[in-house]
Amino acid sequence: MSADARFFGYAGPLSLTTIAAAVGGAFDGDPERSFSGVGSLEAATSEEVSFCEAPRYASALRATGAGAVLVPGTLASQVPQGCVAIVCPSPAAAFGKVAALFHPGPKPQARIDPTAIVAADAVIGEGTEIGPMSVIGAGARIGEDCLIGPMVTVGTGVVLGAGCVLHSHASISHAICADGVVLHPGARVGQEGFGFTVAPDGRFETAPQLGLVELGRGVEVGANSCVDRGALANTVLGEGTRLDNLVQVGHNVRTGRGCILVAQVGVSGSTVMGDYVSAGGQAGFAGHLSIGSRARIGAQAGVIQDLPAEAEVFGTPAAPIREVFRALQVLRRLAAESRHIKRREAE
Amino acid sequence: MSADARFFGYAGPLSLTTIAAAVGGAFDGDPERSFSGVGSLEAATSEEVSFCEAPRYASALRATGAGAVLVPGTLASQVPQGCVAIVCPSPAAAFGKVAALFHPGPKPQARIDPTAIVAADAVIGEGTEIGPMSVIGAGARIGEDCLIGPMVTVGTGVVLGAGCVLHSHASISHAICADGVVLHPGARVGQEGFGFTVAPDGRFETAPQLGLVELGRGVEVGANSCVDRGALANTVLGEGTRLDNLVQVGHNVRTGRGCILVAQVGVSGSTVMGDYVSAGGQAGFAGHLSIGSRARIGAQAGVIQDLPAEAEVFGTPAAPIREVFRALQVLRRLAAESRHIKRREAE
Amino acid sequence: MSADARFFGYAGPLSLTTIAAAVGGAFDGDPERSFSGVGSLEAATSEEVSFCEAPRYASALRATGAGAVLVPGTLASQVPQGCVAIVCPSPAAAFGKVAALFHPGPKPQARIDPTAIVAADAVIGEGTEIGPMSVIGAGARIGEDCLIGPMVTVGTGVVLGAGCVLHSHASISHAICADGVVLHPGARVGQEGFGFTVAPDGRFETAPQLGLVELGRGVEVGANSCVDRGALANTVLGEGTRLDNLVQVGHNVRTGRGCILVAQVGVSGSTVMGDYVSAGGQAGFAGHLSIGSRARIGAQAGVIQDLPAEAEVFGTPAAPIREVFRALQVLRRLAAESRHIKRREAE
Repeated sequence: MSADARFFGYAGPLSLTTIAAAVGGAFDGDPERSFSGVGSLEAATSEEVSFCEAPRYASALRATGAGAVLVPGTLASQVPQGCVAIVCPSPAAAFGKVAALFHPGPKPQARIDPTAIVAADAVIGEGTEIGPMSVIGAGARIGEDCLIGPMVTVGTGVVLGAGCVLHSHASISHAICADGVVLHPGARVGQEGFGFTVAPDGRFETAPQLGLVELGRGVEVGANSCVDRGALANTVLGEGTRLDNLVQVGHNVRTGRGCILVAQVGVSGSTVMGDYVSAGGQAGFAGHLSIGSRARIGAQAGVIQDLPAEAEVFGTPAAPIREVFRALQVLRRLAAESRHIKRREAE
Repeated sequence: MSADARFFGYAGPLSLTTIAAAVGGAFDGDPERSFSGVGSLEAATSEEVSFCEAPRYASALRATGAGAVLVPGTLASQVPQGCVAIVCPSPAAAFGKVAALFHPGPKPQARIDPTAIVAADAVIGEGTEIGPMSVIGAGARIGEDCLIGPMVTVGTGVVLGAGCVLHSHASISHAICADGVVLHPGARVGQEGFGFTVAPDGRFETAPQLGLVELGRGVEVGANSCVDRGALANTVLGEGTRLDNLVQVGHNVRTGRGCILVAQVGVSGSTVMGDYVSAGGQAGFAGHLSIGSRARIGAQAGVIQDLPAEAEVFGTPAAPIREVFRALQVLRRLAAESRHIKRREAE
Repeated sequence: MSADARFFGYAGPLSLTTIAAAVGGAFDGDPERSFSGVGSLEAATSEEVSFCEAPRYASALRATGAGAVLVPGTLASQVPQGCVAIVCPSPAAAFGKVAALFHPGPKPQARIDPTAIVAADAVIGEGTEIGPMSVIGAGARIGEDCLIGPMVTVGTGVVLGAGCVLHSHASISHAICADGVVLHPGARVGQEGFGFTVAPDGRFETAPQLGLVELGRGVEVGANSCVDRGALANTVLGEGTRLDNLVQVGHNVRTGRGCILVAQVGVSGSTVMGDYVSAGGQAGFAGHLSIGSRARIGAQAGVIQDLPAEAEVFGTPAAPIREVFRALQVLRRLAAESRHIKRREAE
């Protein structure tokens, strides 16, 4: 596969030298050999560059039709005849760089669309693009080289660092963002959290939601995901934290650096995570929990108590993954025995 | 109930002849008898048409106040006195046709709203309507008789077949759609998938997301659902596949024809489904799985391994539904016995 | 913490008298003492007001640095030296009132933005504000003092009561709303439900979706949540019902008064709830169920049968919470024994 030129930029072809230089790679071959793009081991042609990071893909590597493959030194000998091994430290990350060389992403155009509505006292950084129909509120401060798509709302007072990307239909209010934050289409940041009290007459009254959202450097919020603002403190996503699509983050949640929340994860209010916590798709967290750094929460797990660092849990209520699978095994054996007994009794 | 004329078109009243002709139905009664609309067996009046497809609703059929009922031949004798039996092959589908006769949906008006922004080189098919504030990107090609609501974004290069309907606030980029595709409000199609690598300095870097989304004929994507574009291949939803609301489909997923994903289902990257797979609400699929045709996945199930065709599974991790319920039964018996023992010990 | 003046209105400072009067509270101290805002027990300064509702927070109360605390009479003696006890009946609800005194929310400005598109025959109540780029359909009737943000769509014929708030990017069609309804950003109300029949040629055809959505007084629909319109009857959310973010409500669902659906809950078509039902995050309901008043459904529970009033359930399939935890306990013991036996056999 080559990326479709109707949809992606193209800066190729590129020489082997250029490619290897970009990733600090070493190779043995014609430095002027020309490449047209990138592809997977399975689909790449002799004009394309692929990559192989781990020994478990070695058989695909040996069978690849790619013209060059980014590999660690340990896999160089598995690269087939006629294909160039480009030896480099982190082939998967290097492949991302090479792909971006061939297919540079959209760059901001330093232009405010005439249909956008920008408050008179908003500050828009140099080089920043604001797309059609977008609305930038009073006192907002947007950094340099941001790319704000069509139909985005940036609320009163919101601060965005440099190089942020807000895709179409995203909304952000009551928030302060560092550099390089990305909101994917339809992401919702800064709206009121879900908190209320029962008034004396029995009606629910919204509790004060007077906090903000703070998004650290490089935080990404997936399509249609929601990050509520804090109640009496802030909701904070630490540097590099990434949310997939349709994720819910309640008020006052705090994550450390580099947390990964896969699609449809839900985190209830005031739960605090350390660094590099990862949660599989549809996992849920009760509120007011403390989750240790590098804890790994399985898909669909339901976490209802604190977890120590490095914990690996699964199931609802979430428990250490080994215990859960052992219990399942025991249960299946009992069920099989029960069926066996029933059959014998029936004979 | 009659549909509220403030909200739905109305082309009635219609005669029994017209109604029966539209569905190839046979009846015994006054062909000029006039009907004003449709309703459920429970709510329809003597001026309205209802339907009954299955014997399990026979008691409601016998008690209906409807003036006519679409039925299979086998249920004709259960239709009460004064009510006309319209005998036809697929009463439920026929009812849909009759309802559409009475209440025709909105038709595109062959008009581009002056507030829409359409790129100079976009191609807009004859008869297509583009609503207020919508933005159509460079090189997009939109087929005939499409209905694009307000505040929709269609990205650069996107291709839509004839008769597609994009409801308000939907966004689509990096995608090629066949005829009759429907995006419900807030649907997100074609955004970047959730893939990244850890760079040598410890930061996450987005892996190349250079594929597209292909939506087959008649595919529907529910409100606020998300379909990510492929990484190095395409994400593909086969003809007639329907996604309910808030569904997540990761990059490189492929479905066959007529798959049904109920609300809040999540499908992780690179999982492949055959034809007519159905997944109940909130079910989840791990990545890189192969799911056989006509497999039925229960609500909230967590599928973590390949499934053969026709499999019926439930639970997390998903297992054959009979086994899961047998295990639950055994567990409950043990729990009851344990309580019994504790009580006896306490005596 | 004081609320950040860039993001929240401010009407302080306020005197102790003013504060106490607003909540019907009694205090013993200098009525002219001045306060600058509100804060949590942990973070409030001597110029701020806090609250304590329950004895379980008594230790935080004793340690607070707040200048005044709203408390029930039973906790007045725990208020530390120098801090004023404001004794009142419902301190949490009272705190909401005090917070709103200091930080009044945005009020509608009685102005239709020139970029909004309002149908000629739509009726807009006095005092109502309509934000930039919003689209109000033919025949819509919007009550007084509503606040409609930017990029909202209100469909043909929609009725909104007085004092409704529709945040940015919300869409509503085929719906009738009482006073005080709130749609948070990206909420989707009134779109087609997920219903279809298999036509004789094997294709799915959408079943008629000719009902409406009715939202009772004070209903709130969270960010990116979805409420589908009815098929042949209406979808109804009773007075005061609150949906958190990313919740799915299928066609023909009916809730009573004051139901609470936490984030990512899904309710399948035609399920009916009594009053004050609460469902924890990610819980799911099969269709056509009847759920009794004040039933409490645990997070991630999967409800597949009717529940009586006051039921407390957990797990999938949902069962009485005590039974579920007892079964889990039994299972864990068996698993532990099994491991023990294996170890002994290995010795």
